[in-house]
Amino acid sequence: MYAVIMAGGKGTRFWPRSRQKRPKQLLNIVGRRSMLQQTVARITSLLPPENIIVVAGEDHGKEVHNQLAELPKENIILEPVGRNTAACIGLAALLVQQRDSAAVMAVLPADHLITDEELFRATLRAAVARARLQPALITLGIRATTAETGYGYIEAGEQVDTVQNHGFYKVISFHEKPDRERAEQYLEQGNFFWNSGMFVWQAGAILEAMSSHLPGLYSDLQKLQSFLDTGDSEDGISRIYPDLESISIDYGVMEKADNVLMIPADFGWNDLGTWASMAQIWPKDDQNNVCQGEIMALDSRQNVVFSRQKLCVLLGVDDLIVVDTEDALLVCPVHKAQDIGKILDVIRQRGMEEYL
Amino acid sequence: MYAVIMAGGKGTRFWPRSRQKRPKQLLNIVGRRSMLQQTVARITSLLPPENIIVVAGEDHGKEVHNQLAELPKENIILEPVGRNTAACIGLAALLVQQRDSAAVMAVLPADHLITDEELFRATLRAAVARARLQPALITLGIRATTAETGYGYIEAGEQVDTVQNHGFYKVISFHEKPDRERAEQYLEQGNFFWNSGMFVWQAGAILEAMSSHLPGLYSDLQKLQSFLDTGDSEDGISRIYPDLESISIDYGVMEKADNVLMIPADFGWNDLGTWASMAQIWPKDDQNNVCQGEIMALDSRQNVVFSRQKLCVLLGVDDLIVVDTEDALLVCPVHKAQDIGKILDVIRQRGMEEYL
Repeated sequence: MYAVIMAGGKGTRFWPRSRQKRPKQLLNIVGRRSMLQQTVARITSLLPPENIIVVAGEDHGKEVHNQLAELPKENIILEPVGRNTAACIGLAALLVQQRDSAAVMAVLPADHLITDEELFRATLRAAVARARLQPALITLGIRATTAETGYGYIEAGEQVDTVQNHGFYKVISFHEKPDRERAEQYLEQGNFFWNSGMFVWQAGAILEAMSSHLPGLYSDLQKLQSFLDTGDSEDGISRIYPDLESISIDYGVMEKADNVLMIPADFGWNDLGTWASMAQIWPKDDQNNVCQGEIMALDSRQNVVFSRQKLCVLLGVDDLIVVDTEDALLVCPVHKAQDIGKILDVIRQRGMEEYL
Repeated sequence: MYAVIMAGGKGTRFWPRSRQKRPKQLLNIVGRRSMLQQTVARITSLLPPENIIVVAGEDHGKEVHNQLAELPKENIILEPVGRNTAACIGLAALLVQQRDSAAVMAVLPADHLITDEELFRATLRAAVARARLQPALITLGIRATTAETGYGYIEAGEQVDTVQNHGFYKVISFHEKPDRERAEQYLEQGNFFWNSGMFVWQAGAILEAMSSHLPGLYSDLQKLQSFLDTGDSEDGISRIYPDLESISIDYGVMEKADNVLMIPADFGWNDLGTWASMAQIWPKDDQNNVCQGEIMALDSRQNVVFSRQKLCVLLGVDDLIVVDTEDALLVCPVHKAQDIGKILDVIRQRGMEEYL
């Protein structure tokens, strides 16, 4: 078994805490270690470090190497540019297959929060066992507990079988982020699961699926393969990777393939998409304010505050996000959490690159 | 002529910028120099430094001496505790009288903003000339230009005379801070002026008025006088001052005396009572945001921001006060500006004295 950790995200909606040089997955948004470190630590009892491959952005190479000193250096793959999840997974599948042509690989984003790590590992183990049986594309579906509008959904069909006490289901279809009303319908129906972006499959199976559904990408990956074969992987990546098709694995493969299975997961999951999601993570005071740092909330409710370096006093304000960092301070309403990434466009327009 | 600058204020509504150790008048809220320094600079062309007396809190002695190195050390008087304006003015009047029994003194708060300094000095000169003629108590009334609810008002009666082209008026009565409706009536009537807390009189005249209207305070001031007579002023102040009656000069004397005159003033005055008053002082952007420091206001209107040390980004927020300092950050709505001082009570209750 191999694990491929996708650590190429930008996390711009966590600005000003997340920066170009330090995106969300490299920060300790929750807990003491970075999200990337937590993602690795979560699986070290499942497989040896040599079998953990991390794909990250070139800009973050040094930081990723520092944070993951326990991994073999050659297991940290740096993308010269981001090319979405299909290219990233395709490259990783080539690398895994090169080491073990029959290997099963788990694909894990580096910026998710998981509460019940034991159950997470059990789920992963079952999925790996199931993937060994046949070249299915297995996706982990998180059992919806609230009518979330910030997640994509997987609509599950009939159960196919059970492995290690975990059921495996056919997938009827994938659904984009719904509006509130539709999300409530999904929740009520019961067979809708949050799309976690975590997958388990044989490396050969996903490459096979790419050859069917993303032939252009697959053909470019073949060119990359020839560099890998001659031990010139860095050279190959720097030459070929920037030209790879940029498409998500969901859109490019999962929604089209007919050998997709879903394993329901109940291990407590949150993709920490925005500061607003901290309301579900950080402890609440009796006025439903959540914070990291020292805050004094007077006549103030449902605020999300990050202020580790100083006392933050809120007086008579509700539903605000307040983020204080060394060189930048952000104040915006919780309902604008999704728009925080747009601030970076303005920063760029105004030539204030030091704040990116 | 003498000037007595009252610099004993706490300025708690400017927290977290103003602190116990650094109240508003010692800060450069507007401009490069502190408000106290600006108050002194404003009158140095009118009278020599030896004739400027500053009364400040004992806690701020070192800072006041540092800021006003050009004044003779003995002209900076430190109150062991604040005892409101009547006691402060009574003490200052004794000190002035000791130096020159016929002296006229101007009483000037240290925390006001004045736009037209030349006109301010001309007004003061006229008031001093008028005060020399007879023992009247002259108050400077600021011609109301808006229906301010944050100021006390002076209702002017008939004109008595003109000195140096400035009219002097009888005072019908003093009025507390009005509600909006009443403030609009005042503005419409035209003979209502903002009570600036600036006064001009003979030192003997105000002491005489205290003997009539504040006999208890006056009798204690006589005890203080005996210490001054023997050159033991510091000893006298530390013994007597804490027991002086704590009452404002307006309530204790001005509202009762029958020799009160008002000189209308048009020199552009603002008492900088709260962060909200910055909206009238600092330059506005096209969304009516005002700031000191670097801000980026996106889809945000009428905010007041103090953020000198970092970029402050506002996204989709209106009518907020945001104040960032080294160790504390405040977010509150503009309409709560008057309540900021209450934060200090909570800080005290919670034993967080370092933030006072």
